[in-house]
Amino acid sequence: MSISLAKLELLFTKLAAFGKNNEGGLTRISYSSEFLAAQTMLSEFMTNIGMKVDIDAIGNLIGTYPGRDNSLPPVCCGSHLDSVPNGGMFDGALGIVTALECIRSWHEENWQPLRPVKVIAFVEEEGTLFGSGCLGSRAMTGELQCIELTDFKTSDGHTLPELLTNCNLDFASFNEASALKKSASFIELHIEQGATLDESGHSVGIVSAIVGIKRLTITICGKANHAGSTAMHRRQDALVAASSLISQIYEDALASGGSYVATVGKLDVFPNAENVIPGKVQMTIEIRSADMATVEAVKEKIMRKYTQVSTQYKVTIETIAENNLAPMPMDEELIKVIAAASEGLGIEYQILPSWAGHDAMIIGRHMPTAMIFVPSINGISHSPLELSEWPAIEKATQVLDGALKILASK
Amino acid sequence: MSISLAKLELLFTKLAAFGKNNEGGLTRISYSSEFLAAQTMLSEFMTNIGMKVDIDAIGNLIGTYPGRDNSLPPVCCGSHLDSVPNGGMFDGALGIVTALECIRSWHEENWQPLRPVKVIAFVEEEGTLFGSGCLGSRAMTGELQCIELTDFKTSDGHTLPELLTNCNLDFASFNEASALKKSASFIELHIEQGATLDESGHSVGIVSAIVGIKRLTITICGKANHAGSTAMHRRQDALVAASSLISQIYEDALASGGSYVATVGKLDVFPNAENVIPGKVQMTIEIRSADMATVEAVKEKIMRKYTQVSTQYKVTIETIAENNLAPMPMDEELIKVIAAASEGLGIEYQILPSWAGHDAMIIGRHMPTAMIFVPSINGISHSPLELSEWPAIEKATQVLDGALKILASK
Repeated sequence: MSISLAKLELLFTKLAAFGKNNEGGLTRISYSSEFLAAQTMLSEFMTNIGMKVDIDAIGNLIGTYPGRDNSLPPVCCGSHLDSVPNGGMFDGALGIVTALECIRSWHEENWQPLRPVKVIAFVEEEGTLFGSGCLGSRAMTGELQCIELTDFKTSDGHTLPELLTNCNLDFASFNEASALKKSASFIELHIEQGATLDESGHSVGIVSAIVGIKRLTITICGKANHAGSTAMHRRQDALVAASSLISQIYEDALASGGSYVATVGKLDVFPNAENVIPGKVQMTIEIRSADMATVEAVKEKIMRKYTQVSTQYKVTIETIAENNLAPMPMDEELIKVIAAASEGLGIEYQILPSWAGHDAMIIGRHMPTAMIFVPSINGISHSPLELSEWPAIEKATQVLDGALKILASK
Repeated sequence: MSISLAKLELLFTKLAAFGKNNEGGLTRISYSSEFLAAQTMLSEFMTNIGMKVDIDAIGNLIGTYPGRDNSLPPVCCGSHLDSVPNGGMFDGALGIVTALECIRSWHEENWQPLRPVKVIAFVEEEGTLFGSGCLGSRAMTGELQCIELTDFKTSDGHTLPELLTNCNLDFASFNEASALKKSASFIELHIEQGATLDESGHSVGIVSAIVGIKRLTITICGKANHAGSTAMHRRQDALVAASSLISQIYEDALASGGSYVATVGKLDVFPNAENVIPGKVQMTIEIRSADMATVEAVKEKIMRKYTQVSTQYKVTIETIAENNLAPMPMDEELIKVIAAASEGLGIEYQILPSWAGHDAMIIGRHMPTAMIFVPSINGISHSPLELSEWPAIEKATQVLDGALKILASK
């Protein structure tokens, strides 16, 4: 066993310095100077451990550790290098640093796999710049080829091609950037961002599926009226109706025992005046589950509530938009490999869904893909308080190492 | 009986033409050209029925019908001439037109009261221009004297003195405008704006009190978190907590049998994003009742719910602002006079509170004041659909006439 926690910590701390802010959080936006400096540091690290380094046309950093037969499709791993504004140091970075520690140990031991192994530091997973996530993995898998890249605009009006040009990246060769498509498999190690592992006490999670998401945008129309002279029994209060719906959605989800989550995150009241009964509410209901049939069943149940709520509060309820993202089940064979690696090391693991999206969700559409989770203390993420503990990280890195060795050896 | 419904309708229709819009509604904002033209038409009408006409420094139109002893404090009546944007034709205007029909009939009959009688068409009751209502009656009762008039600014930056200057009004003489203070009594006839009379079938209402209002601005703080990776049992959802509070406030008010109304009209969610659990909600709870002890008891009951809701949903609830407007009981003697006038005419009346504010609320602080209500069909107001029916208006005018005659004769 040659994974060195000390060396892992060292690289982690070095990387976390790029974008660390005064609030103790991390702001490392794709294509920013901190981001590019972090890339340069990692490139040098990769070179020093015997990897060939490339940066593709969208800005993904790709280190390739040669195998004995480099004509074989590579085994890939890694995670994203960007962060949300004022996020934590573990989200994304941990998947890059742990993969590089595996390769470092191989290089130190002079161990050469049969297949080449790539470690990828993806660009722009968080969607901070364009409100659209996983841009690096979507480019690498060819999913961006049909999309006009100038459609991606930052809030201050800069297009993706402009940003790429500023980084000396050649967006003309963009369509050839889909290098990942020819790979054998992909494993992403990531923090859980939920509290399942922290609550169960497991150091390692193996992801069963990345959950599907349904978003219903609904309007509830009652009647705006005088908040004094309209007697209670004559009201058609859209916010009272919305409140009933929100409570029922929450209570049902709470009682579901974890098979799905449901959230009303966005809600706007019209006319939103202190002395006017709300005439209209627009809100978004988000349902997530690893099982799309569950998502659909929850939707049906909510739609049945529309009728009851409409009648009780004399309002109309209409779904004005519905967006769906199907769940992405992880590859069963890869899950077995990771489980076998854990068992070989005597490390207990828990199989669990990922409730958040990841690059692995995109990549899973194109090749066998799996994820290893590390516990997030109290489930906190996208916050300076984001924390994972080193003993768990060490175990998860050992499992990643074991799985990569198995995959790269056959 | 010399009240003429035909003549009343004629003046009403003539007045309604000033500000009538294409949607069938009325937009007659204070100091607008429509408003000033309506004032001119009413001034001429007043002169023709033997009244002396004044416009005071803030723009109230005051017609004085002389009594036999003009050294006696006058009896006053009237209502406001302005409307909300796209409001109805009855709100305010009806109180002016009905009072003028009484005086017209006296003039026709050559009946002269003992005391002078004033009919006032108040300016800026609705608060449309400055977000602050009853400006005309506040000026006439001297309540604006301590307030810097330049503090009143329209949304496009014009001050009240600017508007007054544009209308050739002398705001330098403003402090002498508090003419109403030396009056004997004030009666305002107004549409109910609620549905109590329409539901009970009465043509005439006598107002017991104008309700008091309490507005609580509260913040509910939970924890903003990932709408996917935060399990339901770990959430501190401020909107779910707010929903529970809103439902309870509504159900309690509904069950109160009409002793008070309560409304959450304004609610804002933070960060208000589809995929983030709401971390904070700010909302306003408005409680209205004719009895301030009831308002306070409802507030105490709501505050007790804070504890239950805070515990259940792991949030904190804080009242960050509390504004109170005390109820304004109408003058008991005046109520008796109006009741006697109704009984003398064989017209049934209902005694009821006014759930909306009026100029009479301001004036009641300074002299004996009362209100006569006319039914609003379906309780609709501040809308082009606002409607009162002529048979009821005729009866209410007769009651007003009777009451004014009693008051002006002693």
